[in-house]
Amino acid sequence: MASRRAVLGVSAAALAGAAGAVAAVARGGDPAPAQPPATVPFHGRHQAGIATPKQRYAVFVAFDLVTRDVAVLRNLMRDWTEVADRVTRGQRPLPRGNAPAGAAVDSGDGDGLAPARLTMTFGFGPGVFDARFGLAARRPPALRDLPAFAGDELDPAYTGGDLVAQVCADDPQLASYAARQLRSRVMGIARLRWVQRGFQGYPADGGTPRNLFGQKDGTANPAPGTPEFADTVWVPDGADPAWMAGGTFLVLRRIRMSLATWDLTPLAEQDAILGRHRDTGAPLSGGSEFTAPDLDRTGPGGAPVIAADSHVRLARPFKMFRRGFNYDDGPQGDEPHAHPAGTEPHDHANHRHDYDAGLLLAVYVRDPGAQFVPAQEALARADRLTTFTTHVGSGVWAVPPGAEPGGYVGQALLG
Amino acid sequence: MASRRAVLGVSAAALAGAAGAVAAVARGGDPAPAQPPATVPFHGRHQAGIATPKQRYAVFVAFDLVTRDVAVLRNLMRDWTEVADRVTRGQRPLPRGNAPAGAAVDSGDGDGLAPARLTMTFGFGPGVFDARFGLAARRPPALRDLPAFAGDELDPAYTGGDLVAQVCADDPQLASYAARQLRSRVMGIARLRWVQRGFQGYPADGGTPRNLFGQKDGTANPAPGTPEFADTVWVPDGADPAWMAGGTFLVLRRIRMSLATWDLTPLAEQDAILGRHRDTGAPLSGGSEFTAPDLDRTGPGGAPVIAADSHVRLARPFKMFRRGFNYDDGPQGDEPHAHPAGTEPHDHANHRHDYDAGLLLAVYVRDPGAQFVPAQEALARADRLTTFTTHVGSGVWAVPPGAEPGGYVGQALLG
Ligand code: HEM
Ligand code: HEM
Repeated sequence: MASRRAVLGVSAAALAGAAGAVAAVARGGDPAPAQPPATVPFHGRHQAGIATPKQRYAVFVAFDLVTRDVAVLRNLMRDWTEVADRVTRGQRPLPRGNAPAGAAVDSGDGDGLAPARLTMTFGFGPGVFDARFGLAARRPPALRDLPAFAGDELDPAYTGGDLVAQVCADDPQLASYAARQLRSRVMGIARLRWVQRGFQGYPADGGTPRNLFGQKDGTANPAPGTPEFADTVWVPDGADPAWMAGGTFLVLRRIRMSLATWDLTPLAEQDAILGRHRDTGAPLSGGSEFTAPDLDRTGPGGAPVIAADSHVRLARPFKMFRRGFNYDDGPQGDEPHAHPAGTEPHDHANHRHDYDAGLLLAVYVRDPGAQFVPAQEALARADRLTTFTTHVGSGVWAVPPGAEPGGYVGQALLG
Repeated sequence: MASRRAVLGVSAAALAGAAGAVAAVARGGDPAPAQPPATVPFHGRHQAGIATPKQRYAVFVAFDLVTRDVAVLRNLMRDWTEVADRVTRGQRPLPRGNAPAGAAVDSGDGDGLAPARLTMTFGFGPGVFDARFGLAARRPPALRDLPAFAGDELDPAYTGGDLVAQVCADDPQLASYAARQLRSRVMGIARLRWVQRGFQGYPADGGTPRNLFGQKDGTANPAPGTPEFADTVWVPDGADPAWMAGGTFLVLRRIRMSLATWDLTPLAEQDAILGRHRDTGAPLSGGSEFTAPDLDRTGPGGAPVIAADSHVRLARPFKMFRRGFNYDDGPQGDEPHAHPAGTEPHDHANHRHDYDAGLLLAVYVRDPGAQFVPAQEALARADRLTTFTTHVGSGVWAVPPGAEPGGYVGQALLG
């Protein structure tokens, strides 16, 4: 729990950054760590919400297009861009085109809320490039439905979608509000497919945040702003297709984690399964959190200290940027059960199955087929961590470059 | 959205209070409003989490007892008290009695998090006083199952429970972690019944927070610390039974709100339905937010300005303390559908019905039968707002007084 040195955590940090000129002195007299400003610029070469330090709340929302008219899709992207541009700056959106007479401009539940580092990031699923819109020739070759992986138990209720929006903020009400403004624009154009909500708590000492297995998660991520990050994430200029330059791809996996089973597993075994110490995040081969794991190091019996079936050893060859959020949705959904012929009429409101908590693993890469797919194949085959996890949702989207002022997200594709 | 005057909102506010001696100057130069410190004392005459200003995040969790042994229930309340006492202070809980050898003390996902105004509040449902535990004679007369109200569509997945815990914090991960520590103590004693999660966004100007209909919600609440609050909420000394003195009762209603329909309703009509202006919170009879509504005032045609079927007029006679949280869970649950004889075997993972968002209305009162029940009967009968809402979950619990250091919550009942 909280260290004696810093009790204020993100509140202090957000304040310090937000005000820009705030004298914030924590209880122990220490200055609060610096944080990004409360308004994250929406416009730019890349969409916001990717290199942006993770906010405390995320809402992922997916839609299926019902329109077959590319002009309608274009208008929707224009509309969403305008919403995102305004709402991320703390302004109300402009009135909806289809609003009935006398209707308020918006739902009002965002009224007065600070921008709270809101970002809204949009992606196009494989469906956008099917026969409907005449865009098949412009499909990025890297945008392909993911293959089925061993152990997948995908639920359509958390899988796929023609369009996705990642909405992140430090204020859950603002994230809910922003997602609702997007929904308010799709009537007759698209159908809501699913919503997934996650969160991230921040240690008061500014250290790497933890997942629901108690592990520091994100240690080996490339750092935004570095050449390694750019090479991992951003589609370069001159790539095919040209409209994706400055964009990236999002792979979202909803990974249920067996919390109760994990909590009964001895700590030493938890550490062996990961290849790092849970408490410090240091690799089992020694050093501290940011020491590179030494995969060649062996223990007294000659076995590798970082086990052959550990998560870190198996994942290490693959370069990706993980921007995951924890989720904790409680007991959820249907208990699986069959209906033999002759079953009495009944409904299913009361059947609840597994506790549904885990990781909304958002992975950003230049090429899912080269970076994510082989990693997940390796993990599904051999990673001991997977005995505690089940992939229950999945999706892949092309995330176009950012919009410049006056433009809209997806303009290079939709014209 | 954010006013020009104050852009920092709760972060600034929480910081100012938490540090106690922080010079926090918002972007516009205004001082941030004062807020309670980051650690809310667990011990005291009353349980924390009731008079405590609402945190940003709430997890309500209910359990059904499987033990029939009052000594086991007593131990569980001792155990939960110890967890709450430690975790609200930013300490790890003590090791679980039933932990396997080598298991970590806790799940680790709370590691390093600041206390974030965490509160954990416990209640006993009517089931605690049934034949199982020999406590029937000590049942508070005011603790009765609520009657069925007109329009109720209660889902057992959000209704009832022998025990409830209200876990609130400004950090969603800490709330998730704290609820998980409670779950980790119930093996063989109780079964998880449901989990419900809510949130509250705070306007940057420190004003009354809004619900998902965009309304300032909480305006007419009695203010904690006032005699009116005490008379409304706390069971007085000398009441029957004596063990409830200093306690209260929690009524929790999960009220789904038809956001899409509401958003299509003209603003003037929204205001007429409530009896207040959405934007300012002022009553339609004039004045500003905290002006008392004038129910006798009539308009040009002689009709009352605050309509006969408006929410405020109908609710006004009833005294209660509302500590509600918004929820936004996305499309959820089964689409209701029948199974005629001869239906093929199939499962229901893919059926989703209504968008599930609304209000987790937590009401604290001295006597639910005298304060909540007649209010809900009046609203269910005549309130126009109910055409936009559906009560889908419900519960009532006796919330015992707080524990003193060395004691435990429920001690006066369980000995
Ligand atoms: C619930 C499931 C998972 C959990 C709890 C988890 C947790 C972790 C943790 C704690 C680390 C070490 C710290 C760090 O570098 O961030 C890590 C590393 C990593 N994980 Fe996962 N992970 C999960 C699933 C996945 C999946 C599905 C992939 C990709 C297919 C993946 C890819 C990686 C990569 C590339 C690394 C960095 C390895 C290195 O370079 O050292 N993880 N993961
Ligand atoms: C989703 C359903 C509901 C919504 C959106 C809602 C919203 C509001 C709003 C905006 C106000 C005016 C501002 C304020 O004083 O807080 C209010 C007042 C009030 N509501 Fe509700 N409410 C709902 C359900 C209920 C229910 C079920 C009850 C009790 C059975 C209730 C009891 C009250 C009371 C007692 C007041 C104060 C009236 C006064 O003294 O002026 N509300 N509500």
